[in-house]
Amino acid sequence: LQTKLPKVGTTIFTVMSQLAMEHDAVNLGQGFPDFNVPERLIEALDRAMREGKNQYAPMTGIPALRQAIADKTLRCYGHRPDPDSEITVASGASEAIFDAVAAVVRPGEEVIVLDPCYDSYEPAIDLAGGRAVHVPLDPATFAPDWNLIRAAVTSKTRLLMINSPHNPSGAMFSADDIAQLTALLRDTGIWLLSDEVYEHIVFDGRRHESVLRYPELRERAFVVSSFGKTYHCTGWKVGYCIAPPALSLELRKVHQYNTFCTFAPAQWAFAEMIQTEPEHYEQLGAFYQSKRDRFREQLLTTRLKPLPVPGGYFQLVDYSAVSDLDDAAFCRWLTVEKGVAAIPLSPFYESPPSGQRLARLCFAKNEATLDRAIERLQKL
Amino acid sequence: LQTKLPKVGTTIFTVMSQLAMEHDAVNLGQGFPDFNVPERLIEALDRAMREGKNQYAPMTGIPALRQAIADKTLRCYGHRPDPDSEITVASGASEAIFDAVAAVVRPGEEVIVLDPCYDSYEPAIDLAGGRAVHVPLDPATFAPDWNLIRAAVTSKTRLLMINSPHNPSGAMFSADDIAQLTALLRDTGIWLLSDEVYEHIVFDGRRHESVLRYPELRERAFVVSSFGKTYHCTGWKVGYCIAPPALSLELRKVHQYNTFCTFAPAQWAFAEMIQTEPEHYEQLGAFYQSKRDRFREQLLTTRLKPLPVPGGYFQLVDYSAVSDLDDAAFCRWLTVEKGVAAIPLSPFYESPPSGQRLARLCFAKNEATLDRAIERLQKL
Ligand SMILES: CSCCC(=O)C(=O)O
Ligand SMILES: CSCCC(=O)C(=O)O
Repeated sequence: LQTKLPKVGTTIFTVMSQLAMEHDAVNLGQGFPDFNVPERLIEALDRAMREGKNQYAPMTGIPALRQAIADKTLRCYGHRPDPDSEITVASGASEAIFDAVAAVVRPGEEVIVLDPCYDSYEPAIDLAGGRAVHVPLDPATFAPDWNLIRAAVTSKTRLLMINSPHNPSGAMFSADDIAQLTALLRDTGIWLLSDEVYEHIVFDGRRHESVLRYPELRERAFVVSSFGKTYHCTGWKVGYCIAPPALSLELRKVHQYNTFCTFAPAQWAFAEMIQTEPEHYEQLGAFYQSKRDRFREQLLTTRLKPLPVPGGYFQLVDYSAVSDLDDAAFCRWLTVEKGVAAIPLSPFYESPPSGQRLARLCFAKNEATLDRAIERLQKL
Repeated sequence: LQTKLPKVGTTIFTVMSQLAMEHDAVNLGQGFPDFNVPERLIEALDRAMREGKNQYAPMTGIPALRQAIADKTLRCYGHRPDPDSEITVASGASEAIFDAVAAVVRPGEEVIVLDPCYDSYEPAIDLAGGRAVHVPLDPATFAPDWNLIRAAVTSKTRLLMINSPHNPSGAMFSADDIAQLTALLRDTGIWLLSDEVYEHIVFDGRRHESVLRYPELRERAFVVSSFGKTYHCTGWKVGYCIAPPALSLELRKVHQYNTFCTFAPAQWAFAEMIQTEPEHYEQLGAFYQSKRDRFREQLLTTRLKPLPVPGGYFQLVDYSAVSDLDDAAFCRWLTVEKGVAAIPLSPFYESPPSGQRLARLCFAKNEATLDRAIERLQKL
């Protein structure tokens, strides 16, 4: 049995979570909150189950949820996608990304990804028979270098994948990035996949430059988001894709025969939550900003140097004052010997920049958890 | 935008459910119960949510659920698969099937499917770059014709897909089928995918010939099942695949980057339910058998002729005494004009047998629902 995915091992998130468990480390690795979902959401899901909403949902998602997503998109980004032809609910942003790639990438075609990038992108491309072309983001700021990206475009380029706010760095696209992106894609046959799962976790009054704000971009884009980060339920796996009708049609052909539909009671719960409590996602930035600020302040009492965090719930730290180990070895050591699990950046790259001494810490945690981690990090 | 799946339209189940809704027909089309899940399962899921089990589950499924599946498999089929290396939880049997096909089928390879077959098989094969080779089941009994299947094997055959109890016919593999299958696969490099989602819905004392009973088969098989049919929750989308370590490893590489994991609270609920209430699935056959028997008796008062139903929750009826329409036209007419939605068989075939006059009715319904349908069918 020869593998079709020779490069794929166990994802770094699983590896580090297991290691954290074995060594009783404070787990700031894999990105998930250690506080619970809003009580209200549990109640709504419970009600849906008791009302018998337990059979197949429509393949595209229940209408109430697609409408709620459309209304929310209008409130947030000034554009209302059509719930029937442009919104598809999927079993997590991951599935939506997988489906989108499978739907438009053909054998021999190229997909540009910006390193460091989420580790699911390339296997999805490989399975479609495509080839990931890795273009590095700026190693200091994690901003896209549009000259490099332009130089990577060939006649085989079918898709460009972007992610803002960015995992692992928290970097965000600027209005200028959007202008450059628009110019780059104009008059090409290249589709865009915009992974915006951290859309509501943005700081310091910044504006999330969703692709959905820009007509010229959204008409060629799959915009993928999820409720996992917004509602503290990474294990519920309800995501969605907004794309113009022709792209949605193709994505749905894959989705229909992949998972077909997504856990129905949660769809009812999110529909209700989004419509009746927009405060939740409106206040999410402030909620996480206070966590970020407190955590950064604490980090100043350690020998780890925090990098700026414009958005998302990850803090990159430069550990070069502490150790000369490469990032994979450092994160293992930190977990096993020092009791704090972190994620190395190298698995997010095709070729990691040599000498980079950065680790990712997740601050989507209760204060007590972060305090415990800091106590341990102070001993470095 | 040229489609990668030119043959794919909207699945017949969605089409007929929509038509049923528009025309207020009794929906005996798409296969789902109109009664609720066990109260106990709702309570267990609710408890899991309140206990905060809402973050990423392990990619392979929570250990408690994999152990419960292993134990149940031992109780049912006399063999206990290893929970760590052989059981993978997925977002429905559909995803498990999609992942298995994506994991082992390469461009140019052939997959044998037995027509009529579930409509997700071929698109999964197409997306992997493979080719579905359709071999018809016996048109009267829906039994496999092993000579035809043997004749379809070539050097490019990579996978054989089987389904017992069978959708749409309810036919079941016999011990002789298993012997023939074993002989056919022996000394080949062909993998087996056995779709057993109706495993617990078998009638008249028949034995479900799970591939898991047979060492020589299970060592080369993906055995896929789901909780949707067993626990009356088709919209929960929790399924699983049992396969030897080498096959599980490849399937997991796809699953890890497709949906990554499955709605976590439901995993806890099923783990508890399976371990503490084996009566539920042990009694499922009797539960559905009484529905089947009652429904068949009622059908004798109509001009539809019921075919035998060894397993599953679908009743095929021969409508040739009523109409000369082809099955697609008949099912539309039955839905729109007569108020009962049914599923035609032709979408389950590459080339439907000409002159076949069969429609599929789902009897996973309350007595009142079936009574209403029968009242309408009596007027044919
Ligand atoms: C699916 S596990 C990975 C979670 C995540 O998004 C991250 O930690 O980056
Ligand atoms: C995913 S909708 C199809 C449901 C089903 O299994 C059937 O009706 O055959």
